[in-house]
Amino acid sequence: MTILDERFRKFEMLPNEEKIKCFELNGRLFDMILSQQLNRQVLDDIYKITNRLRTIAKSKAGSVFLQTVLCHKRAMLYFAQPSSRTFLSFENACHILGMKTSEIRDPSVSSEVKGESYDDSLRTFSSYTDLIIIRHKGQNMAERSAWLLNTCTNRPVPVINGGSGSDQHPTQAILDVYTLQRSFEDQGGLEGKTILMCGDLKRGRTVRSLSYLMKNFEGVRIIYAAPKIFQMREDVCSFLERHNIPYVVELEELEKVLPEADAIYMTRIQDEHDEYAGESKKTDSSRFMLKVSHLASLRPNAIIMHPFPRRDEIDVAIDADPRAMYWRQERNGMWSRAALIAYIFNVHQQIMDY
Amino acid sequence: MTILDERFRKFEMLPNEEKIKCFELNGRLFDMILSQQLNRQVLDDIYKITNRLRTIAKSKAGSVFLQTVLCHKRAMLYFAQPSSRTFLSFENACHILGMKTSEIRDPSVSSEVKGESYDDSLRTFSSYTDLIIIRHKGQNMAERSAWLLNTCTNRPVPVINGGSGSDQHPTQAILDVYTLQRSFEDQGGLEGKTILMCGDLKRGRTVRSLSYLMKNFEGVRIIYAAPKIFQMREDVCSFLERHNIPYVVELEELEKVLPEADAIYMTRIQDEHDEYAGESKKTDSSRFMLKVSHLASLRPNAIIMHPFPRRDEIDVAIDADPRAMYWRQERNGMWSRAALIAYIFNVHQQIMDY
Amino acid sequence: MTILDERFRKFEMLPNEEKIKCFELNGRLFDMILSQQLNRQVLDDIYKITNRLRTIAKSKAGSVFLQTVLCHKRAMLYFAQPSSRTFLSFENACHILGMKTSEIRDPSVSSEVKGESYDDSLRTFSSYTDLIIIRHKGQNMAERSAWLLNTCTNRPVPVINGGSGSDQHPTQAILDVYTLQRSFEDQGGLEGKTILMCGDLKRGRTVRSLSYLMKNFEGVRIIYAAPKIFQMREDVCSFLERHNIPYVVELEELEKVLPEADAIYMTRIQDEHDEYAGESKKTDSSRFMLKVSHLASLRPNAIIMHPFPRRDEIDVAIDADPRAMYWRQERNGMWSRAALIAYIFNVHQQIMDY
Repeated sequence: MTILDERFRKFEMLPNEEKIKCFELNGRLFDMILSQQLNRQVLDDIYKITNRLRTIAKSKAGSVFLQTVLCHKRAMLYFAQPSSRTFLSFENACHILGMKTSEIRDPSVSSEVKGESYDDSLRTFSSYTDLIIIRHKGQNMAERSAWLLNTCTNRPVPVINGGSGSDQHPTQAILDVYTLQRSFEDQGGLEGKTILMCGDLKRGRTVRSLSYLMKNFEGVRIIYAAPKIFQMREDVCSFLERHNIPYVVELEELEKVLPEADAIYMTRIQDEHDEYAGESKKTDSSRFMLKVSHLASLRPNAIIMHPFPRRDEIDVAIDADPRAMYWRQERNGMWSRAALIAYIFNVHQQIMDY
Repeated sequence: MTILDERFRKFEMLPNEEKIKCFELNGRLFDMILSQQLNRQVLDDIYKITNRLRTIAKSKAGSVFLQTVLCHKRAMLYFAQPSSRTFLSFENACHILGMKTSEIRDPSVSSEVKGESYDDSLRTFSSYTDLIIIRHKGQNMAERSAWLLNTCTNRPVPVINGGSGSDQHPTQAILDVYTLQRSFEDQGGLEGKTILMCGDLKRGRTVRSLSYLMKNFEGVRIIYAAPKIFQMREDVCSFLERHNIPYVVELEELEKVLPEADAIYMTRIQDEHDEYAGESKKTDSSRFMLKVSHLASLRPNAIIMHPFPRRDEIDVAIDADPRAMYWRQERNGMWSRAALIAYIFNVHQQIMDY
Repeated sequence: MTILDERFRKFEMLPNEEKIKCFELNGRLFDMILSQQLNRQVLDDIYKITNRLRTIAKSKAGSVFLQTVLCHKRAMLYFAQPSSRTFLSFENACHILGMKTSEIRDPSVSSEVKGESYDDSLRTFSSYTDLIIIRHKGQNMAERSAWLLNTCTNRPVPVINGGSGSDQHPTQAILDVYTLQRSFEDQGGLEGKTILMCGDLKRGRTVRSLSYLMKNFEGVRIIYAAPKIFQMREDVCSFLERHNIPYVVELEELEKVLPEADAIYMTRIQDEHDEYAGESKKTDSSRFMLKVSHLASLRPNAIIMHPFPRRDEIDVAIDADPRAMYWRQERNGMWSRAALIAYIFNVHQQIMDY
């Protein structure tokens, strides 16, 4: 236990509202670590920047312009956990803005194998680059990284949490909210819509984050559809109650609640978190899968989302339905991450003005 | 077996001439999947673009110009099989044209480990990038990828086969033909030349492809030199007969036929395809290796080629002989792949006009 | 044993002064292989270029300019040994100068798994790129690479040794000397200073190289602090004697000699070179670690260095002390490597003139 471990332990005990201040610089978002940082203002700003980026990138001239925005900056992608989707999404987001990238995806090539501490590895990345994007199985590693660079060094480079531990994956939350806002743009916005979440609600971090963020959008109603064992945990439910967000629980089958939903957010069973091998398989989840036969009962303007990877929760035959939004949602991830990076470096105004 | 598996199975049964249409867009080459797509027009176009690229790249100004040609595009290299040569060749080809690259070379970092289907992984790559280059041990994976994106999605990005299964490696064929054409430029072209192929003709995909492509060049004659067990298969031989391409078979030793050859194409024994360990070693291949002592019997203008990697089929002392073309052949691979990419994106005219 | 092995064996037996000529082109440094190439002129040139680079890179316009300097060149990083620090340092150095990079960090993805020789792999890299940076556990691999490309091919691309075997790591020596020169810039330079080296002096290649290089700086005095078993070897000591560089040996504890030192160069115990498991642990090294309590006895202008990775030789609480130079030293590595690359390509005058 180093002196840093002790100091970080104290930081860890602070309430989120105070922690968040550590991730700001001059009153602006600097690191993106916790979903709690995503207030309505940040979400709306990123929404606008994302839309602008997509429009500009349609032409070659626009694309060339975007590559000048951060061409003087270098990013480090440290992905100590298997991930191709989030990794590629971030890497291409960096390239869109002209950033050069370095990566470590296989921890066995890193200096940690020679007994280096995580803190020292992290400071090394910060020595060479201007932005660090981290995915780590450790619960608080992104948080610790941002805290370390901001409070213990004189080279604070921004840190983005690309998924750490089982809880926090804020850029997934950003792209999910972006996709909802974008899809309902011509239907009065996300306000007042019914969001149906289905699958492994207990262990899926995306549905948990998304639930928290709904407090930013008035009149949203949530339906949780899952077998009892995979239902949303008490902590999120009581959060919804405190914020007067109505929700209902459906334990028997997805089909019954489909007609009420404006958005259907499907997730896979996260069996890598099973406490023993085969735990998840003991529960029959077949009534919580989306099948072609269900399409008729969906609202005409409903959208179907999925954070991916998918197994069999959504029949691939549904991909051809115009309401299947998940591939566009995935692509939105790249654009909204590029927007976030521009926002963190405070160069988004250049993009808005182009 | 998904609905896509069924549809693809039907596609697979189409004759090549019909398949090829699926890999075109507006009557132009869009995906490069099958060697059968390489007709004389395509080969000649790529030949000219390659030459032009090489000339332009000699100056810094030219090199900077080339990097503007596709600077607004991003490529994905998905190499699920060990390969450094083809990988690096493609990656640098992309960089020559200014493309940004992302890569997956180690499948263990990919989402397939979480149970994602190949189709979904592929669509993910297409969400972020504008070109996908694939190497896969699966027989038809490049073909499936192009088919999937072209017929099942509304984001068809071009796919290039960087070697899939034991059969198809069309960009190797392109660079081999380019090297032959270039080497015989001052000797009346490839027409009328004698090509000697030696080594593992049975299992080597490069010699098979090259044999097929000879139908595009009048008067070419082929010599197959290999022990009986490694000789060219019946399917290629009957193809040559149908197209009136003369060929002879040499079963005893390479040396006897060397004086007749304009090009000597050496290949290694592909023992990774042995049916049991040590199968290849049971056959004495020592009379089918090129040795320094053979150089005297080679024609003065003959060229020596090899697709690499090499083991002991060509003595390293031969590398210093001016007729050793294999290192230039390897480098031609990078340039001709850059030419192919420019051709697929239909920007080659900019290069020709520079 | 190939014909190349025989020729290289002869080369290996040449004295260093003759070898060095093989690594020059037109009388200039071409490959950076051996620390012995680092004479005072080279060190001073790199020192000036490094300083200039750092100044220019402070502005976006300057950073954009630097990226034009070598934007027409492509580098290959072949790191067959785990390394994140040196790898990232070089990769970002390349990016600073606008070079595109390709990499092999995991030898299992390379063609060597198909039985290709190291020589052939190396020539392949040289086919596609304009600079090769190598880290390899083999003793002379960087040396062999430069020798091979310079004497056996007509495509000699420069090679930089990123650490090969247990002996040579010349770019670490460059950054160490740079850090010393920079730190003592306002104190009359490195001349006349006392350098204390502590830790595993026997097996640490950085302290060995640094000792050799001190002959270039008049009046430097060295203190070697380590338990007897980890003390500096005879070969370095007799070198110092031949060059009249005074040194003393401290066997009991670091603390005693701390007050004399202008620079304290700490190193970790290199237990990966233990002859049997646990060998290093049998010796108590605790009196040769730098602790917070020692800070009071350090000179006010002293600097603390470490080549990293660090274990417990330097208490992390010391990181906050203004004399802790190791994080800046690490960052100096990136800048001085960029300077070296510019110097090798003979484009540094552009940088000096900006």
